[in-house]
Amino acid sequence: MKHIYHDDSLALHTDLYQINMAETYWRDGIHNKRAVFELFFRKLPFGNGYAVFAGLEKIIQYTQGFRFSEEDIEYLKNEVGYKDDFLEYLKNMRFTGSIRSMKEGELVYGNEPILRVEAPLGEAQIIETALLNIVNYQTLIATKASRIKQVVGNEVAMEFGTRRAQEMDAAIWGTRSAYLAGFEATSNVRAGKLFGIPVAGTHAHSMVQAYKDEYTAFTKYAESHKDCVFLVDTYDTLRLGVPNAIKVAKELGDKINFIGIRLDSGDLAYLSKEARKLLDEAGFTKAKIYASSDLDEHTIINLKAQGAKIDSWGIGTKLITAYDQAALGAVYKIVSIEDENGNMEDTIKISSNPDKVTTPGMKKVYRIINNTNHHAEGDYITMEDEKLPEKRLRMFHPTHTYINKVVTNFTAKELHEDIFTNGELVYEIPCLEESREYLKQNLDALWDEYKRIMNPEDYPLDLSQKCWDNKMKNIEEVKEKVAAMKE
Amino acid sequence: MKHIYHDDSLALHTDLYQINMAETYWRDGIHNKRAVFELFFRKLPFGNGYAVFAGLEKIIQYTQGFRFSEEDIEYLKNEVGYKDDFLEYLKNMRFTGSIRSMKEGELVYGNEPILRVEAPLGEAQIIETALLNIVNYQTLIATKASRIKQVVGNEVAMEFGTRRAQEMDAAIWGTRSAYLAGFEATSNVRAGKLFGIPVAGTHAHSMVQAYKDEYTAFTKYAESHKDCVFLVDTYDTLRLGVPNAIKVAKELGDKINFIGIRLDSGDLAYLSKEARKLLDEAGFTKAKIYASSDLDEHTIINLKAQGAKIDSWGIGTKLITAYDQAALGAVYKIVSIEDENGNMEDTIKISSNPDKVTTPGMKKVYRIINNTNHHAEGDYITMEDEKLPEKRLRMFHPTHTYINKVVTNFTAKELHEDIFTNGELVYEIPCLEESREYLKQNLDALWDEYKRIMNPEDYPLDLSQKCWDNKMKNIEEVKEKVAAMKE
Repeated sequence: MKHIYHDDSLALHTDLYQINMAETYWRDGIHNKRAVFELFFRKLPFGNGYAVFAGLEKIIQYTQGFRFSEEDIEYLKNEVGYKDDFLEYLKNMRFTGSIRSMKEGELVYGNEPILRVEAPLGEAQIIETALLNIVNYQTLIATKASRIKQVVGNEVAMEFGTRRAQEMDAAIWGTRSAYLAGFEATSNVRAGKLFGIPVAGTHAHSMVQAYKDEYTAFTKYAESHKDCVFLVDTYDTLRLGVPNAIKVAKELGDKINFIGIRLDSGDLAYLSKEARKLLDEAGFTKAKIYASSDLDEHTIINLKAQGAKIDSWGIGTKLITAYDQAALGAVYKIVSIEDENGNMEDTIKISSNPDKVTTPGMKKVYRIINNTNHHAEGDYITMEDEKLPEKRLRMFHPTHTYINKVVTNFTAKELHEDIFTNGELVYEIPCLEESREYLKQNLDALWDEYKRIMNPEDYPLDLSQKCWDNKMKNIEEVKEKVAAMKE
Repeated sequence: MKHIYHDDSLALHTDLYQINMAETYWRDGIHNKRAVFELFFRKLPFGNGYAVFAGLEKIIQYTQGFRFSEEDIEYLKNEVGYKDDFLEYLKNMRFTGSIRSMKEGELVYGNEPILRVEAPLGEAQIIETALLNIVNYQTLIATKASRIKQVVGNEVAMEFGTRRAQEMDAAIWGTRSAYLAGFEATSNVRAGKLFGIPVAGTHAHSMVQAYKDEYTAFTKYAESHKDCVFLVDTYDTLRLGVPNAIKVAKELGDKINFIGIRLDSGDLAYLSKEARKLLDEAGFTKAKIYASSDLDEHTIINLKAQGAKIDSWGIGTKLITAYDQAALGAVYKIVSIEDENGNMEDTIKISSNPDKVTTPGMKKVYRIINNTNHHAEGDYITMEDEKLPEKRLRMFHPTHTYINKVVTNFTAKELHEDIFTNGELVYEIPCLEESREYLKQNLDALWDEYKRIMNPEDYPLDLSQKCWDNKMKNIEEVKEKVAAMKE
């Protein structure tokens, strides 16, 4: 490739096959057929009892700005070989469809549509890859962060992972997801600027090394910063680091706010307890102990069990990369398409793995809230045009149908909101603080049994009878096709 | 935060503590002291026998473009609270230092400096986070991709992971790393455009669903595309998918290039063998079988062991997220700093974990190539000002010093090149194809024992006697400090 192309649009942030399919649709004249795609994941990550949806704000940015640049078109022509007539279609392509979606901070479970795109087939197809790329990562990290925050509790959780993040976007959007999920601060200043997240951090080992010794380094830091947290593990935590921090804090008295010390290596349980004693003996009973060093929900729960004296947790690698499960498997599946007469016809994808069979048709998702205790009884999925019973709702498990219950005295809250309607943004994007608050309320309405980090209960997610019957009917139709082929 | 800030610079893509330290240095007047930082990781990822360095091109872009925008300064003033005098320093900050680095596609091992920054202390500090963010991810993925490519061998490996990547930058730079490491194509069209990587892909299940049946879908696709790979697992691979692909290929004859079929689910060993039989029986002995579905080096080696008939491998999630080890732990450590008299003085970071003790001083890395067989004997690290013996080189293990050997008749290749000299870019960035070729040559010069994916031999990486003595001297000095403090 001789030409240098600039990174001036995100429209090509898609898989080649999407453009190839769009070409087939366009040449066949069906590119403007209405099609409905649903975005969902099948299995909750980390064995968690719930996931936290994140990614909508970026999806809105992407969708609003969607257009192929001139260079995109040039590239597609010169390097991939598409023809001018089809490229003309792409050049004029904007997103003219509708998107309904859950709000950021919504709790979401396996196999329920998070987001639904209803759009001309060609458009709906091309935006798939970017939507998945965004939701898969941001939802994964929001979920991981929420899990960690469950264990951290009322102490402070800070996101410190930029250096280990999977490139720059992950650092930025990952820390946004962490803040959404209840983290209190980030070390990433760019994320602080872009999203209004509080930023945190003091100094590194290199500063101690630059001054050769901790006494000088802490003193110099204190001369230039009122709030002081001293990092004490450059040479020897208990014999050099903590004593020097105490010495400087005593010497400077109320000229500084001696907030505390930070441990970044070694046995955090032992070191934090010993450091606590040294601080207390020196009269600094209010000085906090910050800790970081490959932390996640498991190490934190264990440190707490060992009586570690840690007040503030800096979480890096394990959160920002979702280290124990680095990808969420959300998919985007067509569930309905316009037929020759302009009617919507449902469609299904079959798989030898029963969990991978899609649920056909346009659907709604309701959260069923018990009016007595204000807790969620489960989620209930209906066909788009179906009316929910007002008094008595029979809920049954979508695979193991013998598991069922009857709910009365409930409020059914529909979880999707209109985001785009015929290409127009009709949704007022909440600020990040609002979404953060929304998640808190959602978690308050969730029984503790679904929130524990180990072996949580399965949250009930049920299909309406109509939805179930429709799925079975579609499966039967495919079976008939297979039988016909064999004959 | 009331103000809306734009994403107009990457200078804030750093940790807050870097800026806090820069402030201490600046207020203390030592911000322009020459400091040397080295970037390295301690342990090879995935249990692999080598890593593939990637990330330099983006580091160059970042470093050249480094400057705080007006909005960055405003943000730092209004929301973080830095004072005007210090902000003036930041506002004028450019990178004026020197960077020496390995080339992209270089093989690199634990504990050897990949890249070295020699710059005014304040500048060297602030760029740390971005440099690590870039190298950690790109090197991780290049290494994972190279591992996978070892197993794929002469067959085709394609990167298909965008939808599961950790946000957009990861998709783009991850697929660049994969191509660098020997992959043949990507599905990500934006990466194709930006880096000149060949793009690949045909159609998805949704196209089959949009046309209701495979026969119509494949026919329509074939009418709009000369080269055809048909996806055959939407309903039933062997009873519907493959027979329909064959039917269409027979009907259309040489109107199309029937390249083959693609399997995306199910038992790939069984399905590929059965599909191969069906294709061969129909006379399509040259039709290829493409496979994708959560593949990595382990599934591929097992599929091959089972005699799977797969010609082309689409690798997604497991590669683009480095699923089995989602982060590389590269660090950036100060090794030397100017003293009061303008001389460079070495510095060390001690840890209770011996592997985490840094090696002080400015250093060089040589690859020792055996002149007889042209294979690498190991890497040899010396002090910057040290002369390498020309004839006889005694190499010894940096921890287990009893492991040693004497090498004669060798060529010592220095691995670092000048990238920036006093802020000027002095390096001609090779095109991606060149770096790809460079890696191939490097792998050819590496014994197979270091390349196998399971239990590879440890590649020898040795410190010169002078380097070793200098490290021991620095450790002793810290010990004396600790002893003095106790008294």
